Amino acid sequence: MNEKELMKELKEINLLQQTLGILDWDIQTGMPEKASEDRSEVNSYLYSLYFSKKIGPKIKEAIQYFSEHPNELSETGKIVFEKVKEDYELEYKVPEELMTALTAATSTAQVQWQQSRETKNFADFQEALTKNIELTKQLIPYWKKDEATDYDVLLNQYEPGMSVEILDRVFQQVKEGIMEIRKTLAEKGHEPDTSFLSRKMTKAQQKRFVTGVIEQLGYDFSRGRLDDTIHPFMIGINHNDARITTRWNEHDFKMAVFGVIHEAGHGMYEQDIDEKFAYTPIYQGTSMGIHESQSLFNEIIIGSNRSFWEKQYPFFQQCAEGTFDDISFTDFYRSLKQTQASLIRIEADSLTYPLHIIIRYEIEKMIFNEGVDVAQLPTIWNQKYEEYLGVRPSNDLEGILQDVHWSGASFGYFPSYALGYMYAAQLLHALEKELSIDEVLASDDYRPIKEWMKEKIHQYGASRKPTQLIQDATGEVLNPQYLIDYMKKIYFSVYQVAEFSSEKEGK
Amino acid sequence: MNEKELMKELKEINLLQQTLGILDWDIQTGMPEKASEDRSEVNSYLYSLYFSKKIGPKIKEAIQYFSEHPNELSETGKIVFEKVKEDYELEYKVPEELMTALTAATSTAQVQWQQSRETKNFADFQEALTKNIELTKQLIPYWKKDEATDYDVLLNQYEPGMSVEILDRVFQQVKEGIMEIRKTLAEKGHEPDTSFLSRKMTKAQQKRFVTGVIEQLGYDFSRGRLDDTIHPFMIGINHNDARITTRWNEHDFKMAVFGVIHEAGHGMYEQDIDEKFAYTPIYQGTSMGIHESQSLFNEIIIGSNRSFWEKQYPFFQQCAEGTFDDISFTDFYRSLKQTQASLIRIEADSLTYPLHIIIRYEIEKMIFNEGVDVAQLPTIWNQKYEEYLGVRPSNDLEGILQDVHWSGASFGYFPSYALGYMYAAQLLHALEKELSIDEVLASDDYRPIKEWMKEKIHQYGASRKPTQLIQDATGEVLNPQYLIDYMKKIYFSVYQVAEFSSEKEGK
Repeated sequence: MNEKELMKELKEINLLQQTLGILDWDIQTGMPEKASEDRSEVNSYLYSLYFSKKIGPKIKEAIQYFSEHPNELSETGKIVFEKVKEDYELEYKVPEELMTALTAATSTAQVQWQQSRETKNFADFQEALTKNIELTKQLIPYWKKDEATDYDVLLNQYEPGMSVEILDRVFQQVKEGIMEIRKTLAEKGHEPDTSFLSRKMTKAQQKRFVTGVIEQLGYDFSRGRLDDTIHPFMIGINHNDARITTRWNEHDFKMAVFGVIHEAGHGMYEQDIDEKFAYTPIYQGTSMGIHESQSLFNEIIIGSNRSFWEKQYPFFQQCAEGTFDDISFTDFYRSLKQTQASLIRIEADSLTYPLHIIIRYEIEKMIFNEGVDVAQLPTIWNQKYEEYLGVRPSNDLEGILQDVHWSGASFGYFPSYALGYMYAAQLLHALEKELSIDEVLASDDYRPIKEWMKEKIHQYGASRKPTQLIQDATGEVLNPQYLIDYMKKIYFSVYQVAEFSSEKEGK
Repeated sequence: MNEKELMKELKEINLLQQTLGILDWDIQTGMPEKASEDRSEVNSYLYSLYFSKKIGPKIKEAIQYFSEHPNELSETGKIVFEKVKEDYELEYKVPEELMTALTAATSTAQVQWQQSRETKNFADFQEALTKNIELTKQLIPYWKKDEATDYDVLLNQYEPGMSVEILDRVFQQVKEGIMEIRKTLAEKGHEPDTSFLSRKMTKAQQKRFVTGVIEQLGYDFSRGRLDDTIHPFMIGINHNDARITTRWNEHDFKMAVFGVIHEAGHGMYEQDIDEKFAYTPIYQGTSMGIHESQSLFNEIIIGSNRSFWEKQYPFFQQCAEGTFDDISFTDFYRSLKQTQASLIRIEADSLTYPLHIIIRYEIEKMIFNEGVDVAQLPTIWNQKYEEYLGVRPSNDLEGILQDVHWSGASFGYFPSYALGYMYAAQLLHALEKELSIDEVLASDDYRPIKEWMKEKIHQYGASRKPTQLIQDATGEVLNPQYLIDYMKKIYFSVYQVAEFSSEKEGK
């Protein structure tokens, strides 16, 4: 065994993974409706080729050999080997029958979840969810390294280094911070006018605007493309092929505009990974949380910035061909940042969004660490929405049945969304020590922002853990105060809360 | 070895083939420009998996076993096995180094062909073409079964059962027939007015019309899709996923309208293959010629039919939103069938098109059977264009460099286009014994035509040879007279040649 042999095997695994990526993209961007049955045969077969190589004899041999002869690996080889070993150890120990049982259970659960959405009744999903939970609990011992609790094991699958201990603390702080901001806005704020947001803007007009914006932000269309889909996503086939997708609503331009800016953030991350990691498992984002930090930096940090919108508004008006000519810039900008408690996570605004995540986190923790009775979950869910957001679902479809994640046994995934948001605000704070984001976004050249992100985050792919990236980029560990401060700055300004908004009003 | 094992292996081969199909479709419909290098790695790897199974030990074992125990196969199993054996025998004997050399040579030739197109000089392509020819000549002995000449071997790869003997005869007849029609038109015909054909019709307007038309013809969008591309094609992933593509020109609606109708004919063929052949090498069109007969039946037989256009013209006018309101139906219809000698095959009209093919056929035959000097080919090409079409290329780009086929060593392919056209006219003649195509195309229900084609051609996939299909469907062997008669009927009517056009003028 030598490094070249290992790299050849990894390349073949990667080529199969790229293939699965294209197939998946095709499924979600217009594969003919009746092609799905044949396609699942194609996918299963290719996935079996992929997986049997990933935990196959060549990789096993390489792990044994290089564990004993680490110095025969190059610098890059060492980094790659660590990741290969880590992935292997997570996967090879798991009994095949348990994985097969989970695959079967999630298939059933997805069907039951869809059916329960029809009846809007959690009772119709309870049995399948219980099975998903049980099987996940059986898997935890195989995945466990040195995590303190069972739920920590699940968190680590999506965000290495994350723990209940950290999340309990930061989520408490964020929750209190948001609730305090909401109280201030309710007492002293001035609600923006949003009546004009539903004016018709055609898909072509929206597309012209948003493709122009993301090109300026640094998304490279010669290494990507934008397609229509139902559930928007970015897929990084490789760093020369990072595709984004969106859906359009001609009476709600915000959906595609912010959606595409968001996905472009994911895409820019993938496009910027150092080529030296090509064809290895390092050639991807390092975690869900860091990935989300990049999309949310685009969508919420840049997308909430007054200078950014002041610069872009004339272009936006031009693309809308007169539709918004009677709306002043300030009114337009304020409308984008209206906040209102809502029941549905994916429709939430950037102030209340973390509360939706925190509710899910608390419930998942109860499931895996506190043995809560599954039948009680809808009641708990509804109580938490009432307590944190002041709204109460009138049925389970508006409540606990809204997200797909649990039907796929993706427990531990939700916190990534809020982590990404906190990372994004913390990265902004660090970036502002070196350059003024307001000045860059007021200029014709946004490159300094992307270059900073490339240097601090993107280039490393999965070669550095989230904790290390954040520490190196910002000089400290995860600190949620930056997010709270940022939310205060934006929302107090938009809502014209006296002490905060003065300096911006002059514009 | 049993049939189930063989079918399992064939299914895996087919699943890899489907994957290669999706990847190829993606390359041609908008893969990011800079993704091509990585993609060629993906393709090579998957192709090697595919090919090594196709001529691998399992298939070899199956061939040995079932050659001795044919009665252990089911009816369908027998049909499939024959095809597997045929493909295997064509491929396994070929020395790997010869195939590798050909792959390398065609790569070089494609680059040289592109370069020679820049200089418009055949001399820059001559060396690479010579190499492609030499290697193909070396391959012929490995492919040869009982064919009479070397060029017959090449013809058989695209059209089993076809021979120089047959083609010499039918092409002579077609050539004389077309030249006689052209003479009559020149002497007695009235040129249609085509000045309005370049009026602007937007892509959206064209798309609305043509998707409506092909749905009526029987193309099933729930098992297909229409995408943009540079070089239009149809790709049959499987019978539930037969995708078509087109390019658009807003000042030449004919390009996309006839192009999409053409590709839909290929798509309908693939969509109609009997499901019992799924995941086997029978699950595809039987030959290039039969495939082309289906696309040309749509494009030229239906697309030249006066009743068809009379029925569709109001819908066309409606889609064009007023652009053609001042054009009478008769003027419109006549404009579609103008004929004029041209230099470029893919721009040729339906009367002169076969002459372009016959020129290529005669030259390919000279190369493989008569040892012509490659350096002489441009001169021969230009002379033949002058002789058959009365036009002479002013440079090699307008002449011998126009087609991609020879750079890919696809010798023997060109005749399929003309065969398809002859088959289409012969199928029309047979169909008209059972139903009136004019009546069907004047009605709201085109299904009887597609049902006839499904019964006679489509359902069989590759389980029957072209010769058998044509014999069974039409009651006779290939007979080019139907094409000549058909051309006379259409062109004499459109050009108002007295004795033919009377009965139609009343409309």
